[in-house]
Amino acid sequence: MTRQELIQQIKQKQSFLCVGLDTDAKKMPQCVFDLHDPIFEFNKAIIDATAPYCVAYKPNLAFYEAYGVKGMISFENTIKYIKEHHPHHLIIADAKRGDIGNTSQMYARTFFEEYDVDALTVAPYMGEDSVTPFLGYEGKWVILLALTSNKGSQDFQLTPLHTPLVGRWGPGVFKGDRLYEKVLKTSKEWGNEDNMMYVVGATQGQLFERIRDIVPHHFLLVPGVGAQGGSLEEVCKYGMTKDCGLIVNSSRGIIYASSDDHYAEVAGNKARELQQQMAEELKKAGII
Amino acid sequence: MTRQELIQQIKQKQSFLCVGLDTDAKKMPQCVFDLHDPIFEFNKAIIDATAPYCVAYKPNLAFYEAYGVKGMISFENTIKYIKEHHPHHLIIADAKRGDIGNTSQMYARTFFEEYDVDALTVAPYMGEDSVTPFLGYEGKWVILLALTSNKGSQDFQLTPLHTPLVGRWGPGVFKGDRLYEKVLKTSKEWGNEDNMMYVVGATQGQLFERIRDIVPHHFLLVPGVGAQGGSLEEVCKYGMTKDCGLIVNSSRGIIYASSDDHYAEVAGNKARELQQQMAEELKKAGII
Repeated sequence: MTRQELIQQIKQKQSFLCVGLDTDAKKMPQCVFDLHDPIFEFNKAIIDATAPYCVAYKPNLAFYEAYGVKGMISFENTIKYIKEHHPHHLIIADAKRGDIGNTSQMYARTFFEEYDVDALTVAPYMGEDSVTPFLGYEGKWVILLALTSNKGSQDFQLTPLHTPLVGRWGPGVFKGDRLYEKVLKTSKEWGNEDNMMYVVGATQGQLFERIRDIVPHHFLLVPGVGAQGGSLEEVCKYGMTKDCGLIVNSSRGIIYASSDDHYAEVAGNKARELQQQMAEELKKAGII
Repeated sequence: MTRQELIQQIKQKQSFLCVGLDTDAKKMPQCVFDLHDPIFEFNKAIIDATAPYCVAYKPNLAFYEAYGVKGMISFENTIKYIKEHHPHHLIIADAKRGDIGNTSQMYARTFFEEYDVDALTVAPYMGEDSVTPFLGYEGKWVILLALTSNKGSQDFQLTPLHTPLVGRWGPGVFKGDRLYEKVLKTSKEWGNEDNMMYVVGATQGQLFERIRDIVPHHFLLVPGVGAQGGSLEEVCKYGMTKDCGLIVNSSRGIIYASSDDHYAEVAGNKARELQQQMAEELKKAGII
């Protein structure tokens, strides 16, 4: 899916919602277990109920790999179902891969050729040659981890870097770059706004301003609204661009909103609630 | 496998070799394609030929995922085969995983309970809560990326960090920590020498000295000898401890040493050559 197609979908659906398919068998309603592939059946019902209100689906591989070969079949069936029945939704494989060049090339083939998803999350720690193999696919996206939503983002991502111009900060006040800023500045040279996005957690609030200084137009994939405590309004205030520039993910808040037989309907309602808030934000920004 | 068992295996086999099972169907000899599960059959022959000369096997998940469900069955069969026929070899799943806490927990269950491997490579970018879920398993290991063997290691891992004591460096000479050093210093507090190792590329030469200042006793998993140009002698000179403290990996140099019907025999010979060099190093250091 190209950037233009994504922007068009956002305007048409008045939504920049991504539904995270972190499907955990322990949390699925009893009624799906009588079916042949319960994880796929659960996803299918969630997808059909939420499709009018979202522009993207993001299955996290951890939840499928956990069930071994059976889980990977559920993953494959889910991707095929979305492509066949909802072909205008962006499919993000949340796998956080990244390895030396020839190995990243293997991962790229797996996700962009075999599974044929639109986007893959990638970890930046191993640098350029671990990321560029994913960038050579027309209409496919690398979504690079920049500033994540979890507490551990403070351990390394927010680390202040050595800045040769000592005078740039006063005692106790650090004004140089932090690691996530270097990740943004360096990696944006590897690709462009048509093949790269960044993961920025909704819990990072005002840091969206600094991020927009560095990547004013790139799309950001934003987890952490809902269960993790991030605010949609704040994310939009500091992160939205004239093309929207945001895909906001919700997983647990939608797919486990109910654990009874009506789980899909309730998930659809939750997605619609978020979509309506998003439509307001898009209107405020003059995008729709 | 505990640290003591690993050290005992190293002394007994006079080897600290890990054979990387980066099995690429495009590079396998023609003769295995007539068999039911070619990737597994190739691995099985390589394993039987190299087992006397190595202490560990490291399948890289990228190479199995690339063949979808079929590939994961080959991976599973390979693990089972090693556990059944060579139960004293450390099995490292090279997957470079890492995600927010509840998701890392899923990966931990997958690799340490379902596949029941001994060790998993993990990426540090997302910090503490992305790593600690892997540390709660008796006799299992996290092998955290610290300083990798690829060119991209220069992009972020070697980045100089802000050091509050400005006087610590003169103009142009940076003496503070670099990111990989912070990763080592911070993460060693999350676990201990019995459940954590670090990936340090053989191509990083004298930086092993700095690494040993920070983690004097931790085992290091060292890729990059052979195809990537690292020197075994240099790695041992700067990285070996009184317990050896090294597991040196070779993948392509062993498993693709020959592409004819005698590939396993040739792989065994290559592994023995490395084992003999390693035995010399262990003797020099007075370990055997």
